[in-house]
Amino acid sequence: MKDMLGRENIITAEKALDLVLQGLPERAIPVAVLELDEALGRILAADIVAAEDLPPFARSTVDGFAVKAADTFGASDTMPAYLDLDGEVFMGQAADMVLHKGCAVKIPTGGMLPEGADAVVMLEHVQAVDTVMLEIMKTAGPGANVIQPGEDAMKGSTVLKKGHWMRPQDIGACAGIGVTNITAFEKPVVSIISTGDEIIPPTSTPNVGQIRDVNSYLLKGLITGAGGKALRKGIFRDDYDQIRTAVEESMKDSDLVLVSGGTSVGTKDLIAGIISDIGSPGLLFHGISLKPGKPLIGGIIKGIPVFGLPGHPAAVSICFELFILPLLQRLSGRDEPAAGIYKPAVFARLAKNIASTQGREEHVRVQLEKREDGLWAVPVISKSGLITTMVKTDGTVVIPLSQNGIEQGTLVEVRLFR
Amino acid sequence: MKDMLGRENIITAEKALDLVLQGLPERAIPVAVLELDEALGRILAADIVAAEDLPPFARSTVDGFAVKAADTFGASDTMPAYLDLDGEVFMGQAADMVLHKGCAVKIPTGGMLPEGADAVVMLEHVQAVDTVMLEIMKTAGPGANVIQPGEDAMKGSTVLKKGHWMRPQDIGACAGIGVTNITAFEKPVVSIISTGDEIIPPTSTPNVGQIRDVNSYLLKGLITGAGGKALRKGIFRDDYDQIRTAVEESMKDSDLVLVSGGTSVGTKDLIAGIISDIGSPGLLFHGISLKPGKPLIGGIIKGIPVFGLPGHPAAVSICFELFILPLLQRLSGRDEPAAGIYKPAVFARLAKNIASTQGREEHVRVQLEKREDGLWAVPVISKSGLITTMVKTDGTVVIPLSQNGIEQGTLVEVRLFR
Repeated sequence: MKDMLGRENIITAEKALDLVLQGLPERAIPVAVLELDEALGRILAADIVAAEDLPPFARSTVDGFAVKAADTFGASDTMPAYLDLDGEVFMGQAADMVLHKGCAVKIPTGGMLPEGADAVVMLEHVQAVDTVMLEIMKTAGPGANVIQPGEDAMKGSTVLKKGHWMRPQDIGACAGIGVTNITAFEKPVVSIISTGDEIIPPTSTPNVGQIRDVNSYLLKGLITGAGGKALRKGIFRDDYDQIRTAVEESMKDSDLVLVSGGTSVGTKDLIAGIISDIGSPGLLFHGISLKPGKPLIGGIIKGIPVFGLPGHPAAVSICFELFILPLLQRLSGRDEPAAGIYKPAVFARLAKNIASTQGREEHVRVQLEKREDGLWAVPVISKSGLITTMVKTDGTVVIPLSQNGIEQGTLVEVRLFR
Repeated sequence: MKDMLGRENIITAEKALDLVLQGLPERAIPVAVLELDEALGRILAADIVAAEDLPPFARSTVDGFAVKAADTFGASDTMPAYLDLDGEVFMGQAADMVLHKGCAVKIPTGGMLPEGADAVVMLEHVQAVDTVMLEIMKTAGPGANVIQPGEDAMKGSTVLKKGHWMRPQDIGACAGIGVTNITAFEKPVVSIISTGDEIIPPTSTPNVGQIRDVNSYLLKGLITGAGGKALRKGIFRDDYDQIRTAVEESMKDSDLVLVSGGTSVGTKDLIAGIISDIGSPGLLFHGISLKPGKPLIGGIIKGIPVFGLPGHPAAVSICFELFILPLLQRLSGRDEPAAGIYKPAVFARLAKNIASTQGREEHVRVQLEKREDGLWAVPVISKSGLITTMVKTDGTVVIPLSQNGIEQGTLVEVRLFR
């Protein structure tokens, strides 16, 4: 893509992502009903509403004595209140007595408050004078040590919203309100098309000049880990018809199509041409001001996003983080994700100066080292074509567009690899 | 557990974890052979060694011309070197020519260097004078724009170590060196025994005084997410014989046994007694200086760790993070995990003062808020018995044993919930 003066139309990563997200049509995502035990990591397709109060009755949060708060007013170590012991509540059973003025009922943690009681005094603040009379050494305000009915979840309240990503605590909350099946969005399907005359499957032995496919395995792992379903569609030669057919076939069963490989300018232009030719709106950008990741191309064909990814594994990984991941979240039906406001990261001091070119966002891979004086990020500067460098590093430090480097010793945020 | 003066023997969380980790016997973990596509998140049971050099031949990292570096010495825009174009290397094919002094061979990114070449000049720095003669406008040092054979992985080198947790990039590295099956440790099996006279399954409708099981669902999610295999063994009454039988049965098929529930002092003592009675060394600690999480009890019976977890979901979650997770990593055969030097976390400013008791490590749940001036952590102070509070929060801020609070505005580390 060139502008009117023939210059290449290279845009920022942020702008490129906006173009794709804004160009995506709204569409209905298929749903499935799942057992609660299968819900981990899935996205809710419908709100979860409490059908009843949780807890359904007032419960004590401590071992102690249920009382009328008013009966304890002013009670202290030196001026205890005296109450009559009048029964005991047992776990899992209804408190079928009524608490009368001047009386107390023994109650365990989690036990149901009897009618007439509005507070619990902890065991530690009560002394038995004899088998009936109790000394209460502490004032209990109304509601003290009590969870009210519906305090955890009120009947009719929305406990979890459509679009929510299910974590262990969300599964626990569903169990608590008796929701044992959930409606979830189906996982988005992502096709991976490997291209390159030199690429062979990992199961084959390379002839001279050939190299095994790394990127489709890296990508499948990243997609699976992010909650997508990855389909490897095979390895295709750098040929217009072969790749075009593979893209068109993949559009039939996928929500997103990735064309991996092709680091040379000729191959990139080939894939850009295919994205333009199959359908509108076609190519949206060709190259971004990002390192590594500059050769990324992207577009939308008949509502389906299609990317041509860089050939270097490190660049693939950065492009995944910046483009594929937000897109997958959108295609998953996920509401504004927590990851939208923060990324799992740690802070560390930079162990070496790093330089960068202004006007380009640069992602530098680092290794974390725990030293006597804290965590340090050691930049690993190497060719981005190496996969083993990624194996040795823990995350990346981002140098923004506007900066031309970061000095040694600076506190930096290290975005952790997933 | 009381000391000689009858005081309760409450220890720090760190000390308690040490007691358990040091008390665990060494044991062989069963292994399984997996397809590479199933390897994500699994732990390697054997080193992965490169059987050949990766790449197997010298490759160009750019589109350009393969040269002898010596032929370009001193070349610049104003003083170009002149070389004869003598052929072209194609992707995926052997470079079957020999590069002679004073010559250059056209080469694509990823192409194989011909014999006699030791550097590549980028396309941008070359101009064709005619169909044969090239102007080289930049000096290329030996090795410039070349990945050497074995530079990514040397034949015989260990690419990934036994005990490594497989991430997408590790799977990519295996594909690159032709490793399509891996030997992994079997996942550790964790039994969850729910106890409590008031607890019923989420599928049942509670009678008055009853409450649905939350914790075993929360725990199963946490264990599954951490790479373990969770078995829910059912709900048992607060009865010595019932719980003892459940623990003994679970020890037969599990690597770790968790007894969940029982917030009352009586139940905790019951479970502590069972851990002591079944076998040695038995109970190792009874209560820790941690909030929430104080009622945690733990021990080892015949080599198998057994924990009695607090009844409050928030306390369960903190105890999982501090105890069960490191234990699961040990039982998984995982080497010193990356998580051992850092936890996924973000930094945020504290939105309210929080107080704490010195001598107790306190974990305060917070909600993250993105404001104009950055990320803020809003403490959510509520009863730790509520599961929906955990649904609304994003992570925890830790107040160490030695501190008695943190002031509003302080930059704090928020440990993110998984």
